[in-house]
Amino acid sequence: MPRNRAPAPATTSDEEETAVRADALRPTLELAEQIWNQLDAGEIPRMRLPLRTKQNLEFRMREGVWKLGRQMGTRSARKLDGALMLLRTFYLVDFINEMAKSKKTSTLRELYYISEAWQEAKFHSEDESNLLIEDLEVLCQRLREDFRLHPEENGASVLGDLTIKERNRKGIVKTINCRDDVGDGGYALPFNVEKGKIEFVKTSAKFVIAIECGGMVDRLAENGFDEQYDAILIHLKGQPARSTRRFLRRVTEELKLPVVVFTDGDPWSFRIYASVAYGAIKTAHLSSYLATPSAEFLGVTASDIENYDLPSDHLSEQDVRALQAELTDPRFGTAEWRSEIELMLKNGKKAEQQSLAKYGLNYVTEHYLPEKLAEMGVL
Amino acid sequence: MPRNRAPAPATTSDEEETAVRADALRPTLELAEQIWNQLDAGEIPRMRLPLRTKQNLEFRMREGVWKLGRQMGTRSARKLDGALMLLRTFYLVDFINEMAKSKKTSTLRELYYISEAWQEAKFHSEDESNLLIEDLEVLCQRLREDFRLHPEENGASVLGDLTIKERNRKGIVKTINCRDDVGDGGYALPFNVEKGKIEFVKTSAKFVIAIECGGMVDRLAENGFDEQYDAILIHLKGQPARSTRRFLRRVTEELKLPVVVFTDGDPWSFRIYASVAYGAIKTAHLSSYLATPSAEFLGVTASDIENYDLPSDHLSEQDVRALQAELTDPRFGTAEWRSEIELMLKNGKKAEQQSLAKYGLNYVTEHYLPEKLAEMGVL
Repeated sequence: MPRNRAPAPATTSDEEETAVRADALRPTLELAEQIWNQLDAGEIPRMRLPLRTKQNLEFRMREGVWKLGRQMGTRSARKLDGALMLLRTFYLVDFINEMAKSKKTSTLRELYYISEAWQEAKFHSEDESNLLIEDLEVLCQRLREDFRLHPEENGASVLGDLTIKERNRKGIVKTINCRDDVGDGGYALPFNVEKGKIEFVKTSAKFVIAIECGGMVDRLAENGFDEQYDAILIHLKGQPARSTRRFLRRVTEELKLPVVVFTDGDPWSFRIYASVAYGAIKTAHLSSYLATPSAEFLGVTASDIENYDLPSDHLSEQDVRALQAELTDPRFGTAEWRSEIELMLKNGKKAEQQSLAKYGLNYVTEHYLPEKLAEMGVL
Repeated sequence: MPRNRAPAPATTSDEEETAVRADALRPTLELAEQIWNQLDAGEIPRMRLPLRTKQNLEFRMREGVWKLGRQMGTRSARKLDGALMLLRTFYLVDFINEMAKSKKTSTLRELYYISEAWQEAKFHSEDESNLLIEDLEVLCQRLREDFRLHPEENGASVLGDLTIKERNRKGIVKTINCRDDVGDGGYALPFNVEKGKIEFVKTSAKFVIAIECGGMVDRLAENGFDEQYDAILIHLKGQPARSTRRFLRRVTEELKLPVVVFTDGDPWSFRIYASVAYGAIKTAHLSSYLATPSAEFLGVTASDIENYDLPSDHLSEQDVRALQAELTDPRFGTAEWRSEIELMLKNGKKAEQQSLAKYGLNYVTEHYLPEKLAEMGVL
């Protein structure tokens, strides 16, 4: 097996996990120290953090991803609102450190309810707690996963010849091959796919195909596409969760595998692709962890709808508006995307990926994908 | 291990799978023969099938589930619409038999697109194709899984000491322990959980806890609840998919394990419980496969919200209307449910299951669940 496809698995010993976690918490303690020093010097405590407004977002053409700009804001205890925000921040820092000590994790919703005990500093909605966690990510340059916080729903599922090691919640490391050791449901990504939690052991795969719909993943698996073409199938489950995007990023980076994205052919699916490749506005502060700029869009393209004469629907008014918005979105600023979007607007048609079944259940794996992948130079 | 918890695994040899499938298709061929005979006798072809109208639904108090009544309807080729329905039915029968021969399965959406090739008999919407499949289930007394048809999304995930055998799509039988052989994401239920596809091998569990939210499943798993109390955790993912309900039914029936249902405390979660226990109106023809009448509701109850002083929200107008509708729903016809619903209406409050985090991350597994399960006689 070529070296670049089989990185030596990093050790995932208890010591190492502890080390990773300690490093994750350090910036939260520095933050606390900073406030302590301000209080000690008799100053009104304050924090400076990058603004996460739309005006402070920059699309970095060279890296191909969204990043936060240089504008900074200040949160000070001079006013009641600011004081409450600072109090809340340190209740959160305290909770995060407590969790690490007791080796717990928490859902974002649990955190919201945990704050019931913070009295006047408690959150009034889950949006409020989610925003504060994102602030802390920006301030500390860490992922919320490092803080042991996670959303309700887990990530996607993976099918194909990829062997991973997962350290489960009991600290036991399990070696799982995502083709041989799982059922038809595949390997379910946990919410944390960071190093220390998941390591890649080996793969014989030549590329990764990230797929919007579960039905299409099942089709490719049933038709043996993963084995015939040495592919890893990843189910995006619509707009992909953070853990799915992080997993894709790690797969490209560490296994040096190309990623292609296979979705429906409509403006919303274009955005699924964009969030995989260039990141989302909401998580611009994490683009370098989550985005996979080398990911390529396979289809369904507007020209596929014509070339393959696919059953299609008319674009709705909403679809048209979404496409028009994409024409001014820097993520779709290339000549290829512009002509793709303009063609879809001109033809007024969208199509689902499963519409390829018009030609039978094997068409997608025997004709469509081999043709498209050859065109893209992946096969 | 007591005998009733460790049924001998049924053989899942290739021959047996073929036998199961042949039996599944027999009624579709009988249907075809029937029409053939009518045509041969010079009659206008027709089919009789139980009406699936609301008026023809009966709640069978003794069995505790919804069933179809005795009213029958006739579909005849006398009119164009009826003729098209018959044509469509036999295109579908043909497709189902072809799939079985080539060992394929198909998503409901693929079927919809497959019908593009049926010319004037093609479906005009996915609702239309879904309805016809349900008709065929009623006519043939089979599950759509027997016809190798499945929805887009798979079932829930399972965590706990339960060893199953799954025959995967390549025909290979895999033995998987849902605690030791999976990652934190658990064992993902495939869309088909019938005998021949999945067999139970053994378990040390004493009961099953079916849980609405993924975050709560993670909480119980992280806190080691499954090991401490010998429980199998099943994530319902909101309103549970067919395969999840079928899996719960098989677990109670074959492993003789009690099932408790743990959801949010609101009218919509009551309905999740009802669909697990008594079946849904839409799948009344399948209640004896899908419903688990012995499943008990654990909470969050209206009285829990008071007794545990949980953070709650006000009932919306929609919530109130849903509760009022439940008062006339025969599935909630018991004295317990009536008083539960009336209490919720009186207090005007609902609460999420994760609101128990108000008292810390361990409260649910150290206090709430042991108390409630002891009350119910499960622990």
